[in-house]
Amino acid sequence: MTASRILFLVIDGLADRPCPELDNLTPLEAASHPVLDSLAQNGVTGIMDPIAPGVRPGSDTAHLALLGYDPKTCYTGRGPLECEGTGIRMEPGMIGFRCNYATISPDGLVTDRRAGRVRDTAALSQAVQDGVDLAKFGIGFVFRSGAGHRAALAFKGDSLGHCVSSNDPKQDGVPPSAISPLGDNTPDKKTAFACNEFIRQSAEILADHPLNRERERQGLCPANIVFLRGAGEMGRLEPFGKKYGLDGSVIAAASLIAGIGSAVGLERVPVEGITGSQDSNIRGKIAAAIRELSHRDFVLVNIKGADESGHDGNAREKKAFVEKVDRELAPLPGLKDTLIVVCADHSTPCSIRDHSADPVPVIVHGDGVRTDAVNEYGERACARGGLGRIRGADLLPIARDLINRAHKYGA
Amino acid sequence: MTASRILFLVIDGLADRPCPELDNLTPLEAASHPVLDSLAQNGVTGIMDPIAPGVRPGSDTAHLALLGYDPKTCYTGRGPLECEGTGIRMEPGMIGFRCNYATISPDGLVTDRRAGRVRDTAALSQAVQDGVDLAKFGIGFVFRSGAGHRAALAFKGDSLGHCVSSNDPKQDGVPPSAISPLGDNTPDKKTAFACNEFIRQSAEILADHPLNRERERQGLCPANIVFLRGAGEMGRLEPFGKKYGLDGSVIAAASLIAGIGSAVGLERVPVEGITGSQDSNIRGKIAAAIRELSHRDFVLVNIKGADESGHDGNAREKKAFVEKVDRELAPLPGLKDTLIVVCADHSTPCSIRDHSADPVPVIVHGDGVRTDAVNEYGERACARGGLGRIRGADLLPIARDLINRAHKYGA
Repeated sequence: MTASRILFLVIDGLADRPCPELDNLTPLEAASHPVLDSLAQNGVTGIMDPIAPGVRPGSDTAHLALLGYDPKTCYTGRGPLECEGTGIRMEPGMIGFRCNYATISPDGLVTDRRAGRVRDTAALSQAVQDGVDLAKFGIGFVFRSGAGHRAALAFKGDSLGHCVSSNDPKQDGVPPSAISPLGDNTPDKKTAFACNEFIRQSAEILADHPLNRERERQGLCPANIVFLRGAGEMGRLEPFGKKYGLDGSVIAAASLIAGIGSAVGLERVPVEGITGSQDSNIRGKIAAAIRELSHRDFVLVNIKGADESGHDGNAREKKAFVEKVDRELAPLPGLKDTLIVVCADHSTPCSIRDHSADPVPVIVHGDGVRTDAVNEYGERACARGGLGRIRGADLLPIARDLINRAHKYGA
Repeated sequence: MTASRILFLVIDGLADRPCPELDNLTPLEAASHPVLDSLAQNGVTGIMDPIAPGVRPGSDTAHLALLGYDPKTCYTGRGPLECEGTGIRMEPGMIGFRCNYATISPDGLVTDRRAGRVRDTAALSQAVQDGVDLAKFGIGFVFRSGAGHRAALAFKGDSLGHCVSSNDPKQDGVPPSAISPLGDNTPDKKTAFACNEFIRQSAEILADHPLNRERERQGLCPANIVFLRGAGEMGRLEPFGKKYGLDGSVIAAASLIAGIGSAVGLERVPVEGITGSQDSNIRGKIAAAIRELSHRDFVLVNIKGADESGHDGNAREKKAFVEKVDRELAPLPGLKDTLIVVCADHSTPCSIRDHSADPVPVIVHGDGVRTDAVNEYGERACARGGLGRIRGADLLPIARDLINRAHKYGA
């Protein structure tokens, strides 16, 4: 028997280190998760360095690696992937930024770095798109709103660099920084110039925009300046379908993850009520994934939430969230004809409130796998598993082989 | 104590996935093999990705990797290695093909793709070698018979490519295909032209050959056309002796494996009655290996048979063959002064009837190894072993170190 499709479930920031407040268990080890344990018991387990041992992954570089794209060759910054996440179609060589709407006072000091968490900024972004003129500098651009106060900006033009600073001063009460090249390269200078020009022109448009005037009348912070950060040059990403011969989709609330999926050619599947946070509609995600699997070879589902608790250093909350996730995974063990892969994109230990390079536990469950003696899902349990210690880039090739879609190399 | 020589035993296609007809054990797990178990118990075990996780090896690419030659840089096709296997001395840049003698009818349709499994074709091949003239196109060639209906062809000349199709139409009742370049490169066009010319001229010679006229009188299929496939360019393979400082030999019935050995400079040791199949003289191979070890640092023995059963999807036959092999390995545990390495070149799961990327189990047995708690040879047992999960390219350096022939890197 051989499964014919792959469900790739990435529980963001799940893995951790022993937490004193949990009797030196990790949140995953301390939590009750009978569904994950059942997958582990009937599957094969292991531990995985998302990128390489000792390398602390971002969610972006980790997801690229998990999809088999070497971040060393295709990643220069988060911006281009956020652009994809907001629906901008990035081409290799384009420069992308993640953006925030923010507020500056009439005397030019930053008063709110998130513009009062403004929402529904599409009209503002459209005005900026229509009004800003960079064509005279030989640069095309696309500017689009993202979730909440977020947006994304992409530049297209000859000889543009991505090594530029941000204008976000990271604190209130000071003026925005000027964007400057991070070296002496002409392409970076050209991009920095274009950024400052974009910021200047967009601020003029935003200052007069009726939506901002209305916000001021209501005592709300106007979204009257755009902060640019995470500059990166879009890399050349071989389409997923061509690379693996698999047709796939992605289910993720975070625009970064959805953007990575979209950048490699995975179809983005919308799900009602997903938030990228602990209150997300996980049940809806799993249901959507099962629907997708009826006509896809591969579905990537990213579940956020555990990562948040890790960043907050809240081990008990992380444990409780794992238990919540597990309840929503109840349909998985009964899924027919499906290879189920469960992992995290990185560890987010509560003790350091940030990502770490600790390997993450992995389960591969489905027809034909060589099971092992591990019967629970946990960081230390899976270290005894039959997969041994693998790398993120190995996982999808292993899964593809198990659904019999790998090609023989040689004769 | 340190062993001074290495026996490298590769059981071709041995590893498998759980088989329902064997109570979800693999053939290796289900079989009784006290000798292999004794080696595992007194040695150190592990699992190995012959090339890399998720990469499905051919027997050729796997053996190259096991000998420490990266197929990515030295392998473009099976042809040059088959040439070596038939005794053609390949130089870097030569183009090699594996060939079949076949039969076409007077009206030019293929009637038997193996020429009635003709044997003893040396006289035919010599006539082709003497009669075909490619010198006027600036191309030298060597054409030699292999086992049964098989042969090999090598081209030598300037600017020859290897990206060409085959003339084997893969079915009877149709004319042979024309060989064509797989792109627009001039070297490939030149090779394709030479192939078609070779096929045309050799067919004229074969049509009139007395041996074929005699076959026709006897109602047998004449061997009157040559099929060419597996085109590849011979890579630059550092001689084994220079690479490792070890003097070695190879014992293998399959011309492909013998050819790989010969290509890297291992001495090929003939053994009576070896067939590359389940009826092979395994005892003779082991006896020859033991004789060789009296004056060699390294002996590679390939045992075919398990791979066949995997390709046939016959788990019970595979299990029985493993038991047969094990009986013939009885002299091994008593071998003095020898590091015994046992592995497979790839998995050939009965469930998929083809090679897979599942890792293979490995034993390293001999003086000085750090033993582990594993006391049986099996895919899942060895996953708990002390070697962990390694790659094919790691195995020979590990073995060389254990016989104290590795050099210190640094001070």
